[in-house]
Amino acid sequence: MNFPSMLATSVRRPSIDLLREIQIFQDLDDAVRGRVAAVSELLTVPQDTVLCRQGEPADRLFILSKGQVALSNTTPNGSLAVVEVISPGGYFVLATVLARLPLLMTAHTATPSELVAVDSAGLHALLAEEPALATSLMRAEAMDFQALVRQVCDLKLRTTAQRLGCYLLDLSKDNAAGSASLRLPFDKRLLAARLGCRQENLSRAFAALRSFGVETHGARVILHDIPSLRAYAEPDELDRNQQPA
Amino acid sequence: MNFPSMLATSVRRPSIDLLREIQIFQDLDDAVRGRVAAVSELLTVPQDTVLCRQGEPADRLFILSKGQVALSNTTPNGSLAVVEVISPGGYFVLATVLARLPLLMTAHTATPSELVAVDSAGLHALLAEEPALATSLMRAEAMDFQALVRQVCDLKLRTTAQRLGCYLLDLSKDNAAGSASLRLPFDKRLLAARLGCRQENLSRAFAALRSFGVETHGARVILHDIPSLRAYAEPDELDRNQQPA
Repeated sequence: MNFPSMLATSVRRPSIDLLREIQIFQDLDDAVRGRVAAVSELLTVPQDTVLCRQGEPADRLFILSKGQVALSNTTPNGSLAVVEVISPGGYFVLATVLARLPLLMTAHTATPSELVAVDSAGLHALLAEEPALATSLMRAEAMDFQALVRQVCDLKLRTTAQRLGCYLLDLSKDNAAGSASLRLPFDKRLLAARLGCRQENLSRAFAALRSFGVETHGARVILHDIPSLRAYAEPDELDRNQQPA
Repeated sequence: MNFPSMLATSVRRPSIDLLREIQIFQDLDDAVRGRVAAVSELLTVPQDTVLCRQGEPADRLFILSKGQVALSNTTPNGSLAVVEVISPGGYFVLATVLARLPLLMTAHTATPSELVAVDSAGLHALLAEEPALATSLMRAEAMDFQALVRQVCDLKLRTTAQRLGCYLLDLSKDNAAGSASLRLPFDKRLLAARLGCRQENLSRAFAALRSFGVETHGARVILHDIPSLRAYAEPDELDRNQQPA
Protein backbone atom coordinates (compact mmCIF):
# COMPACT_ATOMS: atom_id res chain seq x y z
CA MET A 1 0.00 0.00 0.00
CA ASN A 2 1.22 3.44 -0.92
CA PHE A 3 1.37 6.09 1.81
CA PRO A 4 2.40 9.39 0.23
CA SER A 5 2.54 12.40 2.50
CA MET A 6 -0.46 14.66 2.96
CA LEU A 7 -1.11 16.71 -0.15
CA ALA A 8 -4.32 18.70 -0.27
CA THR A 9 -4.92 20.00 -3.75
CA SER A 10 -7.29 22.67 -2.44
CA VAL A 11 -8.32 23.95 0.99
CA ARG A 12 -11.46 25.92 1.87
CA ARG A 13 -14.26 26.16 4.51
CA PRO A 14 -17.22 23.77 4.12
CA SER A 15 -20.58 25.43 3.47
CA ILE A 16 -23.43 25.21 5.98
CA ASP A 17 -25.38 23.48 3.19
CA LEU A 18 -22.78 20.72 3.11
CA LEU A 19 -22.81 20.32 6.92
CA ARG A 20 -26.62 20.14 6.83
CA GLU A 21 -26.34 16.99 4.68
CA ILE A 22 -23.96 15.27 7.12
CA GLN A 23 -25.79 12.85 9.39
CA ILE A 24 -23.88 13.57 12.60
CA PHE A 25 -24.73 17.30 12.28
CA GLN A 26 -28.39 16.76 11.35
CA ASP A 27 -29.83 17.48 14.80
CA LEU A 28 -27.99 20.82 15.10
CA ASP A 29 -29.36 24.20 14.10
CA ASP A 30 -27.62 26.33 11.46
CA ALA A 31 -26.05 28.64 14.07
CA VAL A 32 -24.14 25.69 15.57
CA ARG A 33 -23.34 24.33 12.09
CA GLY A 34 -21.89 27.76 11.26
CA ARG A 35 -19.62 27.57 14.31
CA VAL A 36 -18.51 24.06 13.27
CA ALA A 37 -17.82 25.31 9.72
CA ALA A 38 -15.67 28.12 11.14
CA VAL A 39 -13.25 25.58 12.69
CA SER A 40 -13.33 23.23 9.68
CA GLU A 41 -11.66 22.88 6.32
CA LEU A 42 -13.02 21.25 3.18
CA LEU A 43 -10.27 19.09 1.70
CA THR A 44 -10.09 17.64 -1.80
CA VAL A 45 -7.41 14.98 -1.87
CA PRO A 46 -6.15 12.46 -4.44
CA GLN A 47 -6.20 8.68 -4.01
CA ASP A 48 -3.64 7.09 -1.63
CA THR A 49 -3.24 10.18 0.53
CA VAL A 50 -2.54 9.61 4.23
CA LEU A 51 -4.94 11.83 6.17
CA CYS A 52 -3.70 10.95 9.65
CA ARG A 53 -1.29 8.40 11.02
CA GLN A 54 -1.40 5.83 13.86
CA GLY A 55 0.49 7.05 16.96
CA GLU A 56 0.20 10.76 16.12
CA PRO A 57 -2.03 13.18 18.05
CA ALA A 58 -5.66 13.28 16.87
CA ASP A 59 -5.76 16.93 15.80
CA ARG A 60 -8.71 16.71 13.38
CA LEU A 61 -12.06 14.94 13.15
CA PHE A 62 -12.73 13.84 9.57
CA ILE A 63 -16.09 13.50 7.84
CA LEU A 64 -16.08 12.03 4.35
CA SER A 65 -18.32 13.80 1.83
CA LYS A 66 -17.07 12.05 -1.36
CA GLY A 67 -14.87 9.02 -2.03
CA GLN A 68 -13.61 6.21 0.17
CA VAL A 69 -11.19 6.10 3.09
CA ALA A 70 -9.57 2.98 4.58
CA LEU A 71 -8.75 2.89 8.30
CA SER A 72 -5.94 0.52 9.13
CA ASN A 73 -3.76 -0.52 12.04
CA THR A 74 -0.21 -1.79 11.65
CA THR A 75 1.38 -4.24 14.09
CA PRO A 76 5.07 -3.96 15.11
CA ASN A 77 6.03 -6.60 12.51
CA GLY A 78 4.37 -4.56 9.76
CA SER A 79 1.15 -6.57 9.29
CA LEU A 80 -1.65 -4.27 8.30
CA ALA A 81 -5.32 -4.82 9.26
CA VAL A 82 -8.00 -2.78 7.54
CA VAL A 83 -10.37 -2.03 10.40
CA GLU A 84 -13.02 -0.28 8.33
CA VAL A 85 -13.68 1.31 4.96
CA ILE A 86 -15.53 4.59 5.26
CA SER A 87 -18.18 5.64 2.71
CA PRO A 88 -19.56 9.16 2.13
CA GLY A 89 -21.39 10.43 5.23
CA GLY A 90 -19.07 8.42 7.46
CA TYR A 91 -16.66 9.97 9.94
CA PHE A 92 -13.48 8.77 11.61
CA VAL A 93 -11.13 9.19 14.59
CA LEU A 94 -14.02 10.71 16.56
CA ALA A 95 -13.36 8.73 19.76
CA THR A 96 -9.67 9.64 19.84
CA VAL A 97 -10.38 13.31 19.07
CA LEU A 98 -12.98 13.53 21.85
CA ALA A 99 -10.65 11.83 24.36
CA ARG A 100 -7.51 13.65 23.12
CA LEU A 101 -5.68 10.31 22.71
CA PRO A 102 -3.06 9.37 20.10
CA LEU A 103 -4.48 7.84 16.93
CA LEU A 104 -4.90 4.07 16.93
CA MET A 105 -5.38 3.93 13.17
CA THR A 106 -3.97 5.34 9.96
CA ALA A 107 -6.47 6.74 7.46
CA HIS A 108 -5.76 6.91 3.74
CA THR A 109 -7.95 7.66 0.74
CA ALA A 110 -8.79 4.57 -1.32
CA THR A 111 -10.17 6.80 -4.09
CA PRO A 112 -10.01 10.57 -4.80
CA SER A 113 -11.99 12.05 -1.91
CA GLU A 114 -13.54 15.15 -0.41
CA LEU A 115 -13.54 15.58 3.37
CA VAL A 116 -14.55 17.99 6.09
CA ALA A 117 -11.69 18.22 8.62
CA VAL A 118 -12.80 19.73 11.93
CA ASP A 119 -10.00 21.17 14.06
CA SER A 120 -9.81 19.27 17.35
CA ALA A 121 -9.05 22.30 19.59
CA GLY A 122 -11.83 24.30 17.94
CA LEU A 123 -14.23 21.39 18.37
CA HIS A 124 -13.43 21.03 22.08
CA ALA A 125 -14.03 24.75 22.62
CA LEU A 126 -17.41 24.42 20.88
CA LEU A 127 -18.35 21.30 22.87
CA ALA A 128 -18.02 23.25 26.11
CA GLU A 129 -20.53 25.84 24.82
CA GLU A 130 -22.95 23.81 22.70
CA PRO A 131 -24.58 20.87 24.55
CA ALA A 132 -26.46 19.85 21.37
CA LEU A 133 -23.13 19.25 19.64
CA ALA A 134 -21.90 17.12 22.55
CA THR A 135 -25.10 15.04 22.37
CA SER A 136 -24.74 14.54 18.61
CA LEU A 137 -21.11 13.49 18.87
CA MET A 138 -21.69 11.13 21.80
CA ARG A 139 -24.39 9.46 19.77
CA ALA A 140 -22.10 9.24 16.75
CA GLU A 141 -19.38 7.73 18.95
CA ALA A 142 -21.83 5.11 20.23
CA MET A 143 -22.82 4.19 16.67
CA ASP A 144 -19.13 3.72 15.84
CA PHE A 145 -18.82 1.59 18.94
CA GLN A 146 -21.76 -0.57 17.95
CA ALA A 147 -20.33 -1.09 14.47
CA LEU A 148 -17.12 -2.40 16.08
CA VAL A 149 -19.02 -4.71 18.44
CA ARG A 150 -20.88 -6.08 15.43
CA GLN A 151 -17.59 -6.62 13.63
CA VAL A 152 -16.06 -8.44 16.63
CA CYS A 153 -19.08 -10.77 16.76
CA ASP A 154 -18.96 -11.25 13.01
CA LEU A 155 -15.27 -12.26 13.19
CA LYS A 156 -15.89 -14.62 16.11
CA LEU A 157 -19.03 -16.33 14.87
CA ARG A 158 -19.04 -16.42 11.09
CA THR A 159 -16.89 -18.02 8.40
CA THR A 160 -15.34 -15.83 5.70
CA ALA A 161 -18.05 -16.89 3.24
CA GLN A 162 -20.78 -15.99 5.75
CA ARG A 163 -19.11 -12.64 6.47
CA LEU A 164 -18.97 -11.93 2.75
CA GLY A 165 -22.65 -12.96 2.46
CA CYS A 166 -23.62 -10.55 5.26
CA TYR A 167 -21.61 -7.81 3.63
CA LEU A 168 -23.36 -8.33 0.24
CA LEU A 169 -26.79 -8.44 1.91
CA ASP A 170 -25.98 -5.20 3.69
CA LEU A 171 -25.01 -3.58 0.36
CA SER A 172 -28.23 -4.78 -1.31
CA LYS A 173 -30.25 -2.54 1.09
CA ASP A 174 -33.69 -3.90 0.24
CA ASN A 175 -33.58 -7.21 2.07
CA ALA A 176 -37.24 -7.88 1.42
CA ALA A 177 -36.55 -8.31 -2.32
CA GLY A 178 -35.89 -11.75 -3.79
CA SER A 179 -32.91 -10.65 -5.90
CA ALA A 180 -30.61 -7.66 -6.31
CA SER A 181 -27.83 -6.31 -8.48
CA LEU A 182 -25.05 -4.28 -6.90
CA ARG A 183 -21.52 -2.99 -7.36
CA LEU A 184 -18.73 -3.66 -4.85
CA PRO A 185 -17.83 -0.18 -3.55
CA PHE A 186 -14.12 -0.95 -3.30
CA ASP A 187 -11.59 -3.31 -4.85
CA LYS A 188 -11.28 -6.95 -3.83
CA ARG A 189 -7.88 -6.47 -2.17
CA LEU A 190 -9.42 -3.92 0.20
CA LEU A 191 -12.55 -6.05 0.62
CA ALA A 192 -10.42 -9.06 1.67
CA ALA A 193 -8.57 -6.91 4.20
CA ARG A 194 -11.85 -5.50 5.56
CA LEU A 195 -13.31 -9.01 5.93
CA GLY A 196 -10.09 -10.18 7.62
CA CYS A 197 -9.02 -12.80 5.09
CA ARG A 198 -6.41 -13.35 2.39
CA GLN A 199 -7.33 -12.56 -1.20
CA GLU A 200 -7.32 -16.26 -2.16
CA ASN A 201 -9.80 -16.95 0.65
CA LEU A 202 -12.02 -14.17 -0.66
CA SER A 203 -12.09 -15.89 -4.08
CA ARG A 204 -12.97 -19.17 -2.34
CA ALA A 205 -15.71 -17.39 -0.39
CA PHE A 206 -17.22 -15.97 -3.59
CA ALA A 207 -17.07 -19.49 -5.09
CA ALA A 208 -18.82 -20.94 -2.00
CA LEU A 209 -21.59 -18.33 -2.31
CA ARG A 210 -22.37 -19.44 -5.90
CA SER A 211 -24.53 -22.24 -4.43
CA PHE A 212 -26.61 -19.52 -2.79
CA GLY A 213 -27.22 -17.61 -6.01
CA VAL A 214 -24.32 -15.14 -5.90
CA GLU A 215 -22.96 -14.33 -9.38
CA THR A 216 -19.96 -12.02 -9.87
CA HIS A 217 -18.55 -10.18 -12.88
CA GLY A 218 -15.64 -8.15 -11.54
CA ALA A 219 -17.09 -5.51 -9.24
CA ARG A 220 -20.66 -6.28 -10.36
CA VAL A 221 -22.50 -8.77 -8.16
CA ILE A 222 -25.94 -10.27 -8.71
CA LEU A 223 -27.82 -11.86 -5.80
CA HIS A 224 -30.28 -14.24 -7.48
CA ASP A 225 -31.72 -15.73 -4.31
CA ILE A 226 -31.63 -13.40 -1.31
CA PRO A 227 -33.67 -15.71 0.99
CA SER A 228 -31.20 -18.55 0.41
CA LEU A 229 -28.20 -16.25 0.97
CA ARG A 230 -29.81 -14.90 4.17
CA ALA A 231 -30.42 -18.43 5.46
CA TYR A 232 -26.76 -19.27 4.88
CA ALA A 233 -25.05 -16.08 6.09
CA GLU A 234 -27.42 -15.37 9.01
CA PRO A 235 -27.09 -11.58 9.15
CA ASP A 236 -27.86 -10.01 12.51
CA GLU A 237 -31.46 -8.77 12.18
CA LEU A 238 -31.30 -6.90 15.44
CA ASP A 239 -28.77 -4.48 13.96
CA ARG A 240 -31.33 -2.81 11.77
CA ASN A 241 -33.72 -2.30 14.67
CA GLN A 242 -30.96 -0.68 16.66
CA GLN A 243 -30.23 2.11 14.21
CA PRO A 244 -31.45 5.40 15.68
CA ALA A 245 -34.80 6.50 14.27
CA MET B 1 -25.15 -20.72 29.56
CA ASN B 2 -27.60 -20.03 32.33
CA PHE B 3 -29.47 -16.72 32.34
CA PRO B 4 -31.53 -16.50 35.51
CA SER B 5 -33.47 -13.31 36.06
CA MET B 6 -31.95 -10.39 37.92
CA LEU B 7 -31.67 -11.14 41.63
CA ALA B 8 -29.71 -8.71 43.77
CA THR B 9 -29.10 -10.19 47.19
CA SER B 10 -28.49 -6.73 48.66
CA VAL B 11 -28.89 -3.15 47.42
CA ARG B 12 -27.24 -0.03 48.85
CA ARG B 13 -25.45 3.22 47.83
CA PRO B 14 -21.74 2.96 46.99
CA SER B 15 -19.43 4.95 49.29
CA ILE B 16 -17.37 7.87 48.00
CA ASP B 17 -14.31 5.85 49.09
CA LEU B 18 -15.31 3.10 46.67
CA LEU B 19 -15.90 5.56 43.82
CA ARG B 20 -12.49 7.14 44.52
CA GLU B 21 -10.87 3.78 43.71
CA ILE B 22 -12.65 3.46 40.36
CA GLN B 23 -10.45 4.56 37.50
CA ILE B 24 -13.08 6.36 35.41
CA PHE B 25 -13.96 8.56 38.43
CA GLN B 26 -10.36 9.28 39.41
CA ASP B 27 -10.15 12.75 37.88
CA LEU B 28 -13.31 13.94 39.66
CA ASP B 29 -13.44 15.72 43.00
CA ASP B 30 -15.37 14.24 45.93
CA ALA B 31 -18.30 16.63 45.46
CA VAL B 32 -18.94 15.21 41.98
CA ARG B 33 -18.31 11.65 43.24
CA GLY B 34 -20.95 12.28 45.91
CA ARG B 35 -23.44 13.30 43.23
CA VAL B 36 -22.62 10.14 41.24
CA ALA B 37 -23.06 8.02 44.40
CA ALA B 38 -26.49 9.58 44.97
CA VAL B 39 -27.76 8.19 41.63
CA SER B 40 -26.01 4.83 42.04
CA GLU B 41 -26.61 1.50 43.73
CA LEU B 42 -24.04 -0.97 45.00
CA LEU B 43 -25.14 -4.44 43.92
CA THR B 44 -23.92 -7.77 45.26
CA VAL B 45 -25.03 -10.49 42.89
CA PRO B 46 -24.47 -14.25 42.59
CA GLN B 47 -22.81 -15.99 39.65
CA ASP B 48 -24.80 -16.35 36.39
CA THR B 49 -26.99 -13.31 37.01
CA VAL B 50 -28.11 -11.34 33.96
CA LEU B 51 -27.41 -7.67 34.67
CA CYS B 52 -28.79 -6.29 31.43
CA ARG B 53 -30.01 -7.80 28.21
CA GLN B 54 -29.36 -7.18 24.50
CA GLY B 55 -32.18 -5.19 22.85
CA GLU B 56 -33.43 -3.61 26.08
CA PRO B 57 -32.98 0.09 26.95
CA ALA B 58 -29.64 0.94 28.58
CA ASP B 59 -30.99 2.24 31.88
CA ARG B 60 -27.82 1.76 33.98
CA LEU B 61 -24.07 2.15 33.58
CA PHE B 62 -22.24 -0.67 35.38
CA ILE B 63 -18.82 -0.55 37.01
CA LEU B 64 -17.45 -3.81 38.35
CA SER B 65 -15.78 -3.61 41.77
CA LYS B 66 -15.42 -7.36 42.44
CA GLY B 67 -15.84 -10.50 40.33
CA GLN B 68 -16.11 -11.07 36.58
CA VAL B 69 -18.74 -10.17 34.02
CA ALA B 70 -19.06 -11.56 30.49
CA LEU B 71 -20.49 -9.37 27.72
CA SER B 72 -22.04 -11.37 24.91
CA ASN B 73 -24.05 -10.89 21.76
CA THR B 74 -26.48 -13.47 20.41
CA THR B 75 -27.23 -13.83 16.69
CA PRO B 76 -30.76 -14.63 15.42
CA ASN B 77 -29.87 -18.34 15.14
CA GLY B 78 -28.79 -18.39 18.79
CA SER B 79 -24.99 -18.38 18.39
CA LEU B 80 -23.40 -16.53 21.26
CA ALA B 81 -20.19 -14.50 20.96
CA VAL B 82 -18.43 -13.37 24.10
CA VAL B 83 -17.30 -9.87 23.16
CA GLU B 84 -15.37 -9.15 26.33
CA VAL B 85 -14.83 -10.36 29.89
CA ILE B 86 -14.76 -7.49 32.38
CA SER B 87 -12.41 -7.52 35.39
CA PRO B 88 -12.68 -5.38 38.55
CA GLY B 89 -12.28 -1.66 37.71
CA GLY B 90 -13.86 -2.24 34.30
CA TYR B 91 -17.17 -0.76 33.19
CA PHE B 92 -19.72 -1.68 30.56
CA VAL B 93 -22.56 -0.43 28.35
CA LEU B 94 -21.16 3.10 28.67
CA ALA B 95 -21.50 3.98 24.97
CA THR B 96 -25.13 2.84 24.80
CA VAL B 97 -26.00 4.64 28.06
CA LEU B 98 -24.43 7.90 26.84
CA ALA B 99 -26.19 7.67 23.47
CA ARG B 100 -29.48 6.36 24.94
CA LEU B 101 -29.48 3.43 22.50
CA PRO B 102 -30.80 -0.11 23.07
CA LEU B 103 -28.21 -2.53 24.46
CA LEU B 104 -26.14 -4.40 21.89
CA MET B 105 -24.89 -6.91 24.45
CA THR B 106 -26.10 -9.02 27.34
CA ALA B 107 -24.04 -8.88 30.55
CA HIS B 108 -23.98 -11.72 33.04
CA THR B 109 -21.80 -12.43 36.06
CA ALA B 110 -19.26 -15.20 35.45
CA THR B 111 -18.48 -15.29 39.21
CA PRO B 112 -20.19 -13.80 42.30
CA SER B 113 -19.72 -10.06 41.77
CA GLU B 114 -20.08 -6.59 43.26
CA LEU B 115 -21.06 -3.71 40.99
CA VAL B 116 -21.84 -0.02 41.03
CA ALA B 117 -24.94 0.59 38.90
CA VAL B 118 -25.35 4.25 37.92
CA ASP B 119 -28.87 5.25 36.92
CA SER B 120 -28.86 6.45 33.31
CA ALA B 121 -31.33 9.33 33.76
CA GLY B 122 -29.48 10.54 36.86
CA LEU B 123 -26.18 10.32 35.01
CA HIS B 124 -27.47 12.37 32.07
CA ALA B 125 -28.75 15.06 34.45
CA LEU B 126 -25.29 15.19 36.08
CA LEU B 127 -23.50 15.30 32.73
CA ALA B 128 -25.32 18.50 31.83
CA GLU B 129 -24.06 20.16 35.05
CA GLU B 130 -20.61 18.64 35.57
CA PRO B 131 -18.27 19.07 32.57
CA ALA B 132 -15.50 17.13 34.40
CA LEU B 133 -17.76 14.07 34.47
CA ALA B 134 -18.47 14.39 30.74
CA THR B 135 -14.72 14.58 30.05
CA SER B 136 -14.03 11.50 32.19
CA LEU B 137 -16.76 9.47 30.52
CA MET B 138 -15.79 10.50 26.99
CA ARG B 139 -12.26 9.38 27.76
CA ALA B 140 -13.54 6.09 29.18
CA GLU B 141 -15.67 5.58 26.07
CA ALA B 142 -12.63 6.17 23.86
CA MET B 143 -10.62 3.60 25.84
CA ASP B 144 -13.43 1.09 25.31
CA PHE B 145 -13.38 1.96 21.64
CA GLN B 146 -9.65 1.41 21.40
CA ALA B 147 -9.95 -1.97 23.11
CA LEU B 148 -12.45 -3.01 20.44
CA VAL B 149 -10.25 -1.75 17.60
CA ARG B 150 -7.40 -3.77 19.07
CA GLN B 151 -9.63 -6.83 19.23
CA VAL B 152 -10.75 -6.42 15.60
CA CYS B 153 -7.11 -6.23 14.51
CA ASP B 154 -6.23 -9.19 16.70
CA LEU B 155 -8.98 -11.29 15.10
CA LYS B 156 -7.99 -10.26 11.57
CA LEU B 157 -4.23 -10.63 11.88
CA ARG B 158 -3.41 -13.33 14.40
CA THR B 159 -3.98 -17.08 14.67
CA THR B 160 -5.78 -18.47 17.74
CA ALA B 161 -2.42 -19.56 19.24
CA GLN B 162 -1.01 -16.06 18.73
CA ARG B 163 -4.13 -14.47 20.23
CA LEU B 164 -3.80 -16.76 23.24
CA GLY B 165 -0.11 -15.85 23.49
CA CYS B 166 -0.92 -12.11 23.45
CA TYR B 167 -3.58 -12.68 26.08
CA LEU B 168 -1.15 -14.54 28.38
CA LEU B 169 1.53 -11.87 27.89
CA ASP B 170 -1.02 -9.21 28.78
CA LEU B 171 -1.90 -11.10 31.98
CA SER B 172 1.76 -11.46 32.95
CA LYS B 173 1.98 -7.63 33.27
CA ASP B 174 5.77 -7.41 33.62
CA ASN B 175 6.79 -7.98 30.03
CA ALA B 176 10.42 -7.13 30.77
CA ALA B 177 10.77 -10.30 32.90
CA GLY B 178 12.06 -13.52 31.35
CA SER B 179 9.45 -15.75 32.95
CA ALA B 180 6.16 -15.45 34.84
CA SER B 181 3.59 -17.49 36.70
CA LEU B 182 -0.07 -16.54 36.45
CA ARG B 183 -3.63 -17.78 36.93
CA LEU B 184 -6.24 -17.66 34.17
CA PRO B 185 -8.87 -15.26 35.53
CA PHE B 186 -11.80 -17.21 34.06
CA ASP B 187 -12.57 -20.72 32.92
CA LYS B 188 -11.40 -22.14 29.61
CA ARG B 189 -14.89 -22.25 28.11
CA LEU B 190 -15.20 -18.48 28.61
CA LEU B 191 -11.61 -17.94 27.48
CA ALA B 192 -12.30 -19.83 24.23
CA ALA B 193 -15.40 -17.71 23.61
CA ARG B 194 -13.48 -14.49 24.35
CA LEU B 195 -10.71 -15.48 21.93
CA GLY B 196 -13.29 -16.42 19.29
CA CYS B 197 -12.49 -20.14 18.96
CA ARG B 198 -13.96 -23.51 19.89
CA GLN B 199 -12.78 -25.19 23.09
CA GLU B 200 -10.91 -27.89 21.16
CA ASN B 201 -9.04 -25.16 19.27
CA LEU B 202 -8.09 -23.54 22.57
CA SER B 203 -6.56 -26.84 23.71
CA ARG B 204 -4.66 -27.03 20.40
CA ALA B 205 -3.49 -23.44 20.88
CA PHE B 206 -2.16 -24.22 24.39
CA ALA B 207 -0.38 -27.26 22.90
CA ALA B 208 1.14 -25.10 20.15
CA LEU B 209 2.43 -22.62 22.75
CA ARG B 210 4.33 -25.39 24.58
CA SER B 211 7.18 -24.91 22.07
CA PHE B 212 7.39 -21.31 23.30
CA GLY B 213 7.73 -22.23 26.97
CA VAL B 214 4.06 -22.13 28.01
CA GLU B 215 3.23 -24.75 30.67
CA THR B 216 -0.32 -25.20 32.00
CA HIS B 217 -1.76 -26.94 35.06
CA GLY B 218 -5.49 -26.24 34.96
CA ALA B 219 -5.91 -22.50 35.54
CA ARG B 220 -2.24 -22.07 36.51
CA VAL B 221 0.03 -21.04 33.64
CA ILE B 222 3.83 -20.68 33.67
CA LEU B 223 5.56 -18.67 30.97
CA HIS B 224 9.13 -20.02 30.96
CA ASP B 225 10.40 -17.97 28.04
CA ILE B 226 8.63 -14.63 27.61
CA PRO B 227 10.98 -13.35 24.85
CA SER B 228 10.27 -16.45 22.74
CA LEU B 229 6.50 -16.16 23.34
CA ARG B 230 6.63 -12.45 22.44
CA ALA B 231 8.51 -13.19 19.21
CA TYR B 232 5.84 -15.74 18.26
CA ALA B 233 2.66 -13.92 19.32
CA GLU B 234 3.78 -10.41 18.29
CA PRO B 235 1.73 -8.39 20.80
CA ASP B 236 1.02 -4.81 19.74
CA GLU B 237 3.67 -2.73 21.57
CA LEU B 238 2.02 0.52 20.60
CA ASP B 239 -0.98 -0.32 22.79
CA ARG B 240 0.96 0.26 25.97
CA ASN B 241 2.20 3.64 24.81
CA GLN B 242 -1.34 4.65 24.04
CA GLN B 243 -2.71 4.14 27.51
CA PRO B 244 -3.46 7.51 29.08
CA ALA B 245 -0.76 8.64 31.51
